[in-house]
Formats: sequence, C-alpha cells, structure tokens
Amino acid sequence: MNKLKRNERIGALIKILCDNPNKIYTLNYFTNLFNAAKSTISEDLVIVKKLMEDLRLGKVETIAGASGGVKYVPYMNLEDTKRILNEICKVLKDSSRVIPGSFLYMSDIIYNPIFVRKMGKIFATKFMNENIDYVITVETKGIPIALMTANYLNIPLVIVRNSNKVTEGSNVSMNYVSGSTGKIQTMYVSKRAIKNEANVLIIDDFMKGGGTAKGLLDLMKEFDATVKGIGVMISTKEPKEKMVNEYLPLIILDKVVNEDEIKIYPNEDLFR
Amino acid sequence: MNKLKRNERIGALIKILCDNPNKIYTLNYFTNLFNAAKSTISEDLVIVKKLMEDLRLGKVETIAGASGGVKYVPYMNLEDTKRILNEICKVLKDSSRVIPGSFLYMSDIIYNPIFVRKMGKIFATKFMNENIDYVITVETKGIPIALMTANYLNIPLVIVRNSNKVTEGSNVSMNYVSGSTGKIQTMYVSKRAIKNEANVLIIDDFMKGGGTAKGLLDLMKEFDATVKGIGVMISTKEPKEKMVNEYLPLIILDKVVNEDEIKIYPNEDLFR
Repeated sequence: MNKLKRNERIGALIKILCDNPNKIYTLNYFTNLFNAAKSTISEDLVIVKKLMEDLRLGKVETIAGASGGVKYVPYMNLEDTKRILNEICKVLKDSSRVIPGSFLYMSDIIYNPIFVRKMGKIFATKFMNENIDYVITVETKGIPIALMTANYLNIPLVIVRNSNKVTEGSNVSMNYVSGSTGKIQTMYVSKRAIKNEANVLIIDDFMKGGGTAKGLLDLMKEFDATVKGIGVMISTKEPKEKMVNEYLPLIILDKVVNEDEIKIYPNEDLFR
Repeated sequence: MNKLKRNERIGALIKILCDNPNKIYTLNYFTNLFNAAKSTISEDLVIVKKLMEDLRLGKVETIAGASGGVKYVPYMNLEDTKRILNEICKVLKDSSRVIPGSFLYMSDIIYNPIFVRKMGKIFATKFMNENIDYVITVETKGIPIALMTANYLNIPLVIVRNSNKVTEGSNVSMNYVSGSTGKIQTMYVSKRAIKNEANVLIIDDFMKGGGTAKGLLDLMKEFDATVKGIGVMISTKEPKEKMVNEYLPLIILDKVVNEDEIKIYPNEDLFR
C-alpha cells in the first residue's frame, strides 16, 4: 500500500478498531498495514485515543505485555443511555401498541437493529469488566438484543431452545416454572455450546416473574458456569419479588392502565 | 465543542458514519457538530471517501437534493468474501461436528457475532441496491445472520414465528410443507409487522428442500410484498430441485460422507 498521510491513517485506524470491538490488534499489524514506523503509529494512536474520549465515542485501550496491543472498547455514556431509553419509552407509550390482554406490542422495537444495537451497547458497557465468556439467551425475542451485546463484547452468543433439536447434538435440559403462568416448561441447550466453568451473562427482552431467568440460572449450574449478570430490556414492576434476586432492567413497565395511560420509564438505578 | 483539527474531524466522521450504516447525515449536522465551515467539511469528506475506497473499507456516498447528505454504505469486496467463506467452510469441516443423523453442528458459527456480522455484510452488499424495506426470517437459527444483514441495510428485521403468540396481536398465518420432512407446519407473523406492498429480503441459515422459503414467499403475498431476494447461509446440493427457484446461498453443503469427509465449499456463483 502507498504511504498514507496522518489523517488517512487515523481514519483507517478508527474504522478498523471500531469494526471489531474488543479485538486486540498488535502495533505490528498496523505498521505492516500502513507501511509506517512503530513510533508513527504510536503517535497516531495517541490522537485516536484522545479524539474518541473527547467526542465520547468509546475508548481505545492499550494492553501491555507479550499478547498486548490496542483495542476499541465500546462505551455508552450515562447521558446517551438516558436519552436512548427515554426515546424507547416514548415509542412504547403509543396507545396503538396495547393489544388484548394488556400486552404491549414491541416486536418492531426489539427486532429493529437501530434500537437493539444501542441496547446491546448499554449492556456491554455495564458488563465490560466482568470477563464474560458467553452471552446466554433463550429463544426468541431476546435474541437480537443478546446478539448485539455479544457483538460489542466480542464473545459468542448461546441460544437456549424451547424444544429438543436434532441439529444440536447431545442436549442438556432443565425444567422451569414460568413465573407468570405457573406452567412447567423445559429448556434445552447443546452440551457442546458452553465450556465448563465459564463466566456468562444472561440477556433477555422481558422479565415478569423471573421464572425463565431462574431456569437459565439452574441450567448454567450444569456447566459449572458463573453467572456474572442478568440483563433484561424490560421488567415489570409487579410482582416485586421475582424468582431471581439480582437483575438489571433497562426499562420498568409499571402498568398498562389503558390505551391512553401506559406507565413505562427508564430504570433510574442505571444513572446512579 | 472546541475546534478539531482535520485529522480529528476525519476520524470522527468515519466513526459516526460507520456506526450508522446507510443513515443519511446532512452536511449541516457535521458543520454544527464540528463548528466548522461547509467547505471544510466537504474537503474532509473528499478525503474520507478516497480513504475508504483505497483501503476497501466500504463506500461513502453523497446524496444530492433537499433530503440529501452523506452516508456510509457497507461493502464487502469479492476477495474478502471468498476468504471469509473459505474460512467458515474450513471450520465446518471439523470431523467433531458430525452428529447422529449426519447433521453438522453449526450453532457456534451461526450465533457467533464475529461470523454473522461478516455474513450479514456479504448479504447487505449483494442486496444493497434493491430498495429493501424489511429483512424477513423465521425463528430461530437464521435470526443472528438476518439481524446483521438488516443492521448493515439499516432496516427493520421481521421474525416469523412457529406458533401463535399473544404478544404479537393479530397474526397472519401460512401453512407450509417442510421440504425435507414432508410435514405440514404453520408459520405466523404479526399483521402489523409489515406494511403493505413493501420490498422484502428473506434471510435464513439453511435450505434443504426449500419448503420454509416457499412458505415465506406465500406469507409475503398476504402483505402484497415483493420478495427481492432469498439469501441462505448454506444450501444442500441435493435435492437440486428446491421448492423455490431463485435463492442465493453463501455456502454449498455437498455431502457429509463420514466424519473425515465433509464436502462443503463457498458458492462459486458469488465470485462470477
């Protein structure tokens, strides 16, 4: 490649780092790619780091040592987090969303890349330093948010299924009681999907009674996994006592009073 | 914000544009953000465009007119496409993946953000100019690839379900015959998920007989939608006659002969 100017190298560095969140690149990688001296790349990276922080676009971190290098760490600041969650709540308050049974129609939000990549970034920011090995979710509606969380953490996603699938090979199953309906169900995951003694993060779209999350906690014990956190997009205010103790909702659904009064707001604990 | 230097503005421009693929930003947005003259931003964008093309990182396009501006168009070149698909095939050829019934275990690939974001970018590159309004998939295994495709196209994802869900409101259903098992099944999608007369792109992980894709085609007729393409990660070589005529596989699964001989390769038509 022809020698690039500083402003071109900086543009390229940002693009490459940000396209691959949490992936470590060695300095050598960039000296080869740009045909430039190590000292030049180091100077570029100083500018990149400062710029990313000044504009609050995330962090670029240097990792020392033999397996060291530089990586982009996605980061959503509190102000943007608040703004985005308020925006989502505003969209969800639309009276046309109320469907029979006082449910809120949300599929257009929880499947929309524009919203789920932002929520994924919020979860990734919260759990960035927990050394998570896998993001775990159960099909179907939590998958997009869970995938985007895994994407920013640069780790695999594991999808737990509601039925036994031949394409998964040998499965580990767990019975659980749905917290809202009281029905007993079974969840399944491929035995080879999760290495033993891993750190996992559970992500789902919705929590009412917490039965599904409890089932996932029990299932993770079968792999001797440590559950480092449970993140849900929305949890209902009632019942206050869920079947799991620690969980982080982005949004609280207080009550669907009627079509004109939907009480839903960001989880204020996020901003403390 | 303090005035930025050119190299800082270029870094920030690339970050903002690439974080939001196919989203149009006005020049005014950047003149305000950077507190800089229109001519300055225009000059910056010339450098950004050239850099992105030279390094083959995607395209930055200018849209003229009242609703005009500038946007980042993700783009995967043929050489990278070939390299990535060969890499995935190599991983899939591992003898330990063969599970009873001559299935290949693939969940670790089709749920892994590192692989699915690349495959999503390949599909987005192929269907970029088709004015797609929605990416459609059917639960569960195709969701991650479909979401990443929708992400790069900057359009909503619609997930068709295998059972009738109360949280979806009024559903439209379609019976279909599984091309591989011959069983009749039903698929459901919320009536409000797809606007009438939209352009849609169907994305799934696997095609054998094509029955699911045919079901989706029929379902889309209920919305007067135009199916602009069907993309699948893997299609089997046999049966040659599928229940749909036009589809684009990334990878062909020829045959799982035994654990030591798995014939699987990239779809050569992609490179012609």
